[in-house]
Amino acid sequence: MFRNFKMVDRFIFGRGCINQLDVILEEIRENSSSSMVFLVDDVFENAEFDNRLPVIDNDYLIWVNVDEEPKTGYIDTLTEDLHGRSKDLPSGIIGVGGGSVMDIAKAVSMMLVNPGSSADYQGWDLIRKPSVYHIGIPTLSGTGAEVSRTAVLSGPVKKLGINSDHAVFNQIVLDPDLIADVPKDQRFYTGMDCYIHCVESLEGTYLNAFSKAYAEKGMDLCKGVFLEKEGPEADEELMMASFCGGMSIAYSQVGVCHAMSYGLSYVIGLHHGIGNCVAFDYLDEFYPKGVAEFRQMCEENDIDLPRKLTAGLSEAEFEKMVDVSLTLDPLWENALGPDWKTIMDRKRIRELYEKM
Amino acid sequence: MFRNFKMVDRFIFGRGCINQLDVILEEIRENSSSSMVFLVDDVFENAEFDNRLPVIDNDYLIWVNVDEEPKTGYIDTLTEDLHGRSKDLPSGIIGVGGGSVMDIAKAVSMMLVNPGSSADYQGWDLIRKPSVYHIGIPTLSGTGAEVSRTAVLSGPVKKLGINSDHAVFNQIVLDPDLIADVPKDQRFYTGMDCYIHCVESLEGTYLNAFSKAYAEKGMDLCKGVFLEKEGPEADEELMMASFCGGMSIAYSQVGVCHAMSYGLSYVIGLHHGIGNCVAFDYLDEFYPKGVAEFRQMCEENDIDLPRKLTAGLSEAEFEKMVDVSLTLDPLWENALGPDWKTIMDRKRIRELYEKM
Repeated sequence: MFRNFKMVDRFIFGRGCINQLDVILEEIRENSSSSMVFLVDDVFENAEFDNRLPVIDNDYLIWVNVDEEPKTGYIDTLTEDLHGRSKDLPSGIIGVGGGSVMDIAKAVSMMLVNPGSSADYQGWDLIRKPSVYHIGIPTLSGTGAEVSRTAVLSGPVKKLGINSDHAVFNQIVLDPDLIADVPKDQRFYTGMDCYIHCVESLEGTYLNAFSKAYAEKGMDLCKGVFLEKEGPEADEELMMASFCGGMSIAYSQVGVCHAMSYGLSYVIGLHHGIGNCVAFDYLDEFYPKGVAEFRQMCEENDIDLPRKLTAGLSEAEFEKMVDVSLTLDPLWENALGPDWKTIMDRKRIRELYEKM
Repeated sequence: MFRNFKMVDRFIFGRGCINQLDVILEEIRENSSSSMVFLVDDVFENAEFDNRLPVIDNDYLIWVNVDEEPKTGYIDTLTEDLHGRSKDLPSGIIGVGGGSVMDIAKAVSMMLVNPGSSADYQGWDLIRKPSVYHIGIPTLSGTGAEVSRTAVLSGPVKKLGINSDHAVFNQIVLDPDLIADVPKDQRFYTGMDCYIHCVESLEGTYLNAFSKAYAEKGMDLCKGVFLEKEGPEADEELMMASFCGGMSIAYSQVGVCHAMSYGLSYVIGLHHGIGNCVAFDYLDEFYPKGVAEFRQMCEENDIDLPRKLTAGLSEAEFEKMVDVSLTLDPLWENALGPDWKTIMDRKRIRELYEKM
């Protein structure tokens, strides 16, 4: 069986295209009198960024905090808050921020119409009812969250996405202007998330011609951005790299690096992009060419990766990291084939974590 | 203003994925009791190809003829025929064939719910009512019709597409098996349609980073297929090349070659792919690198382009070709910039046609 991939309904791409958001919303507002809900990364709270958003009348602008990656409890609180504000469903949820905010917007739009806790839906295709109309406006590029069917969440027992066609955005607004002011290190880490996606996709066992085409292009664009280009053109290409990296996952999967990085995020709270970079630097044996190029990009961009992050972790914490990593069967299977359990055991994962 | 691009809702890609069509249709049938209408290229009429299609109960299988490229009169006849068969709208239109059949499926799905003749809608954004659910299953790769918002038609006075978000397929089924048996010349001509798209997109004035990424990838894949690869892998890559070439038009346009080729099709009935090849070979002055590579691919694939096709045309026929070509403002503007009329006049177009 091949996956029948749900695409984002509409995209708009171009420098300054966020200024067309009012026109896009107008059409949605025509068919509904309820509020639009803007979920915006609170790093923009004092940046007058909200002036650029068409928040009107009874709309809500809610600053969301992603100092920690989104937790199921946070999604449940946001959902409850919105139910409390109005008995009508919002006419749209608009997420403005990095991958974490994209994930929050997806998750809230699903949880507004599906009962229970978001933790009940961590896994594959568990969401039953279609989500509220939702828009993604990335202000960081790399994760590919803007085109994926996943809302990655940390729950009471695991870090695992809600994977559903209902997670897919109805609209994405890709404005390269919005990533122009990202701090250099953060830009690098999220950019490398894309590069690592592409490596894991291309080196994986699930790959087909569709995913290969996208992963190759995503990788080329990343290398251009981090080895050659600067300025506005680089912003545009990084945004496209993220789009291609995300699309490449349609018939592929990420691999060893993401599986390890999920454990790091869960236990020591490392954000996804930097977590991938920390892990990838120890994975020469799986991705020799990719890791070599990655190190070259680190050097070109004056990046000092944090080291010894797991030193001093307790036995229980190490074991929890290994547990989280091992729940991600499809990632391991993509990376190492159907017999991955004969190749990768707890001891080997633990040894890798001890180096990081 | 940037275009807010409507994507195909869903795609499935993989060798043999046409066998999942029944599962895809099941979901649509659940919500509607009316017929599915299969519009299938009649080259498959004696090929037992219809055995592979899930035609059941009160569905209709209609063989469509595309010896000539689709005309507005043909669309109107098909639409009327379907209205005559049932007072209910079909639950879906499934087009199976090359770019012409894709265009027919798009046009019929729109015309079933929009009054008048399809000729009334040749142009940009004239369709008012949402089309019937429609699926595209390409059996030729190159035009990008599977992802475009255009149903190209020849009408009483012009060859011009119905360009509309409502033309976009709800589902595409991309099965590389279906293009495995295309005759060599036809495969080349439709493949070159993709290559030429990419050249015109990359050399055009409308280009942005989105369209550039897709056009570059589409071009690379084409060159791989026609200069290096053979066999199943080449089918898969050609199908992806077509997809990328089509997507590259999102923020771009085709150019001089397509504008000239439309005139050839209209007056001497040349099919789109071969028409592009005939025209492109005389366009060194506009696309020197592209034309050189194109000739290399012709040579590698033992292609003898037809020559002297316009010899013996009447004065009126030449004038008509020039007229058809000159109606295509956006193509000329993309190719030559906003002042294109100072660069390209009737005389120069006529001289180019005389060589072909």
